[in-house]
Amino acid sequence: MIREMAHITVKPGTQADFEAGVRQALPLFHRARGCKRVELHHIIENPQQYVLMVYWETLDDHMVHFRQSEDFQAWRGLVGGFFEKAPEVVHSEVTIEE
Amino acid sequence: MIREMAHITVKPGTQADFEAGVRQALPLFHRARGCKRVELHHIIENPQQYVLMVYWETLDDHMVHFRQSEDFQAWRGLVGGFFEKAPEVVHSEVTIEE
Repeated sequence: MIREMAHITVKPGTQADFEAGVRQALPLFHRARGCKRVELHHIIENPQQYVLMVYWETLDDHMVHFRQSEDFQAWRGLVGGFFEKAPEVVHSEVTIEE
Repeated sequence: MIREMAHITVKPGTQADFEAGVRQALPLFHRARGCKRVELHHIIENPQQYVLMVYWETLDDHMVHFRQSEDFQAWRGLVGGFFEKAPEVVHSEVTIEE
C-alpha cells in the first residue's frame, strides 16, 4: 500500500468550488483499480493549500492505470480550473504507524 | 481532530538511525495530551524525505502543550541530529474522507 500526496494550491476564493469538485470526483477514485481511500486535507496555516491523500495498492495503480485513464481527465476537468499552479505530487510508504 | 504534517529531510545515509529514533520516541507522543496516532511516511521519490504525521485533538495540544514540554526536547534529542535542515511543519483538517 502506498499513499499519493498531492500538494494543491487553489486560486483565492475557490475553496468551496474546489471541495465540491473533489466530492463530485470521489466515484472516479473509488472505481479506480487499487484505490482504497481518499482524504482531502485543508492546511490550517494557508487556506489556499490542500493535500489530497489517496491510498493506492501500488504505485502503478496511480501513475499508470489511473493517470492514463479517462477518469483522470474527468478528475482534472472537475478541479483543474481551480489550481493556482501545477500540483506537486509525491508518494510515500508508511514505515511506522502506532 | 487535526493532523500535524512535519516535512523532514534527513542527512544522507541516516535513514535507519532516524527511523530508530522515531520508534524510540513513540512513547513520548503516546503520553502527550491529545495525541491519538503517529505515522512516519517515507517519500518514495526522495529517500531523504519523510512526513511525520501526528493526529492531535487540538492545535494547542501540539503547538502549546507538546512544544513546551520536556518530552519535545527529548524528541528533538533523539532525532534532531539527523535533520538536514529545520522541518517544515503545517497542520491540516480533513474536510473530505471516504
